Amino acid sequence: MSQAFDVVVIGAGPGGYIAAIRAAQLGFKVACIDEWKNAAGGPAPGGTCTNVGCIPSKALLQSSEHFDHANHHFAEHGISTGAVKMDVAKMVGRKDTVVKQNNDGILYLFKKNKVTFFHGRGSFAQANAEGYDILVKGDKEETIKATNVIVATGSNARALPGADFDETQILSNDGALRIGAVPKKLGLIGAGVIGLEMGSVWRRLGSEVTVLEGLPTFLGAVDQQIAKEAKKAFDKQGLKIEMGVKVGEIKTSKKGVSVAYTTAKGEEVKLDVDKLIVSIGRVPNTDGLNAEGVKLKLDERGAIVVDDECRTNLKGVWAVGDVVRGPMLAHKAEEEGVAVAERIAGQHGHVNFNTIPWVIYTSPEIAWVGRTEEQLKADGVAYKAGTFPFLANGRARALGDTTGMVKFLADATTDEILGVHIVGPMASELISEAVVAMEFKASAEDIARICHAHPSLSEATKEAALAVDKRTLNF
Amino acid sequence: MSQAFDVVVIGAGPGGYIAAIRAAQLGFKVACIDEWKNAAGGPAPGGTCTNVGCIPSKALLQSSEHFDHANHHFAEHGISTGAVKMDVAKMVGRKDTVVKQNNDGILYLFKKNKVTFFHGRGSFAQANAEGYDILVKGDKEETIKATNVIVATGSNARALPGADFDETQILSNDGALRIGAVPKKLGLIGAGVIGLEMGSVWRRLGSEVTVLEGLPTFLGAVDQQIAKEAKKAFDKQGLKIEMGVKVGEIKTSKKGVSVAYTTAKGEEVKLDVDKLIVSIGRVPNTDGLNAEGVKLKLDERGAIVVDDECRTNLKGVWAVGDVVRGPMLAHKAEEEGVAVAERIAGQHGHVNFNTIPWVIYTSPEIAWVGRTEEQLKADGVAYKAGTFPFLANGRARALGDTTGMVKFLADATTDEILGVHIVGPMASELISEAVVAMEFKASAEDIARICHAHPSLSEATKEAALAVDKRTLNF
Repeated sequence: MSQAFDVVVIGAGPGGYIAAIRAAQLGFKVACIDEWKNAAGGPAPGGTCTNVGCIPSKALLQSSEHFDHANHHFAEHGISTGAVKMDVAKMVGRKDTVVKQNNDGILYLFKKNKVTFFHGRGSFAQANAEGYDILVKGDKEETIKATNVIVATGSNARALPGADFDETQILSNDGALRIGAVPKKLGLIGAGVIGLEMGSVWRRLGSEVTVLEGLPTFLGAVDQQIAKEAKKAFDKQGLKIEMGVKVGEIKTSKKGVSVAYTTAKGEEVKLDVDKLIVSIGRVPNTDGLNAEGVKLKLDERGAIVVDDECRTNLKGVWAVGDVVRGPMLAHKAEEEGVAVAERIAGQHGHVNFNTIPWVIYTSPEIAWVGRTEEQLKADGVAYKAGTFPFLANGRARALGDTTGMVKFLADATTDEILGVHIVGPMASELISEAVVAMEFKASAEDIARICHAHPSLSEATKEAALAVDKRTLNF
Repeated sequence: MSQAFDVVVIGAGPGGYIAAIRAAQLGFKVACIDEWKNAAGGPAPGGTCTNVGCIPSKALLQSSEHFDHANHHFAEHGISTGAVKMDVAKMVGRKDTVVKQNNDGILYLFKKNKVTFFHGRGSFAQANAEGYDILVKGDKEETIKATNVIVATGSNARALPGADFDETQILSNDGALRIGAVPKKLGLIGAGVIGLEMGSVWRRLGSEVTVLEGLPTFLGAVDQQIAKEAKKAFDKQGLKIEMGVKVGEIKTSKKGVSVAYTTAKGEEVKLDVDKLIVSIGRVPNTDGLNAEGVKLKLDERGAIVVDDECRTNLKGVWAVGDVVRGPMLAHKAEEEGVAVAERIAGQHGHVNFNTIPWVIYTSPEIAWVGRTEEQLKADGVAYKAGTFPFLANGRARALGDTTGMVKFLADATTDEILGVHIVGPMASELISEAVVAMEFKASAEDIARICHAHPSLSEATKEAALAVDKRTLNF
């Protein structure tokens, strides 16, 4: 007889594995199904994030940052080296080790929390009296029974029509993380998070990088003052970014990839590169799930339709993360995973979409939470803004990295913080203070009056809060 | 006739210059007096922190960290270099430049905020009808009139009896930042913040460093679980730390410094080093202030006696920072400076001593806020503890720095956060979230339920909060 579970999670990315663990902590009998394979064919749970996203990109960003420091910043510290060389295979090998540590970590967590792991593709077989039969197709095929199902199948890179990913010349995020040698010329289509992060890695290692973006506005979702500051830094680094282009024919040959495009001014240009990374967005992944077989409702984008609490149209079936509406962020998926597990247990899980932080791990890093100045204007909210540049921050000077600023946006009447936007050193870590502040509905003055360690970059956060009231102390 | 000011601040360290700026913002006519000189004899405001403390030490820590990375961690990233060499003069020169940027920054801030700066030593001349005559002794001598006086004269390194600082062989924090070449053997007396930071710098650059500490417990003020984790890391790095020693005679000769000491086990040992840094504490600095002349009350340690709001025994005379009770921390001085300026203006400045963060900028960094486990036990408070190791944090793995942990202490009944203790990468920045949380009297569960960006080190903070309720998701 097939095994029966209280909760079966399909997908072991950040949303799925966290949902499975939380459900197990709450006393349920839980299974998690994931088909990702490592190089040896073994299980590689963690999804896009762990295997070809957040984690490996940060590993490469770190390696390339060291390389960049050695080449461009050591001299000012008095450090001399001989020629600095990067063994790309070794760098990628280290990245693979970091990924494997995370894969193995998740398998360990499943064992510790008594989550039964199935290696294979999970899909809906049919409804049964108590829930669903779930088919697992791996090395063998089996069917398990689920009272509750959480679908966490994530997303895939969107290909450009007429330029399918071959992962050797035309690369998605996956191939971009496995380039074996520094390409002399690297093309990127899409100046989004993934494009900018991968562009940063390979530029630092010596590639001549050109980024083509169809939209007219650089990082349109980012507060534009912050985006402009970031653009200035990228320009200075030599990252070529062309906005408002229209990409035409893409041809591959032995010699490389040729991209025809029309500039914003209407010029016809041909860009020849050795490799082309396409990062023009991601599509929800419901391939092979047999959604149609059980009448699981999808929207026109292919995303699973859910309510505010991640309930699908089917009783006992939930969906979280990239496969549903909302930002495609690992930590958003995790929060949804926890909340759904708690809802199944009759608790009141809650995800506050207004306080989900965003991070772009370029150098300088970009991070924000809450609304941008543009959004506040569009929403007709009266606000006050305050900024503080890292140039006036002692720790940033000691670090030798004074790019960027912290920006606070607060309600003009109540002083409640409506958004915090950071571009600069360690923005990814500094944003957590702002998220906590917003969760507690802090005013800008609250942060301005809270003691911050000296010398620290976080003093720039305090000063930006002071700037809202036009009383910075150090600028 | 001598110039008259509403507020005269004596000392332009973090407490003094910030008090002066805040007072000026509040509409007062303000002067600030400081005697610190740069190499050219010009003014060097910023006090110990800027000139021979926080800022220059962080500059050297950053340079030596790069050097350490190049020597010990580049290989794992695939980066090869020739021989890595440190030009100490250049490193120290960069540090001097960083210091000068900060000095000049303060002079600019004075100008911007219309604070009149006097370069010289300030002291009380005599009381007058409205307040005090303040003598400024610099290149010239003049007297100015003050309705309110804020004393912010800081502290000096305490010398070991019989071993005065000569700043060439026996060094205070000042000389320790000006060592011209890497000493082969470096001795340190005092395993406190300054000792450990300076020991870290010179060890990384190649010195054989021995730290002698009289107390039996390593970092006794730090949560002992955190201190032990730090000690393990220092041991691994090769920093020799001997606890519970009794230092005897110290002799200097052309060859170096010889330190006789008795170990905790009673063995007589002689340590021969090239340089000796003594960092056994700091004493409040009221030298030449003429406190006695105006009957300004000092305590037996030489600190100016103040009430909870920094009022001295003299009407209109306030004191802030290292020269009064409380922790000798730049940011504590700043908070007091702001609060005093606001009190003079009839406002209700407030400093919450329970939420002042502490940081030790070693590698790994140590940072904390609130009470330690030992303090809670002593106070008879029932608490729950939760820890999360950076070893299980994806960002730490990607960075290649998984030393340490985050520890939460929460009230056993209410779950209110009572202390957060961090040892590990970027602890100095991660602590700001915890400070904000404690200011809002957050519970551990609050932090556990707040979304943290993935991948980030701050996720370890969230997980440590989850650990309080024994429900970590990633460990």
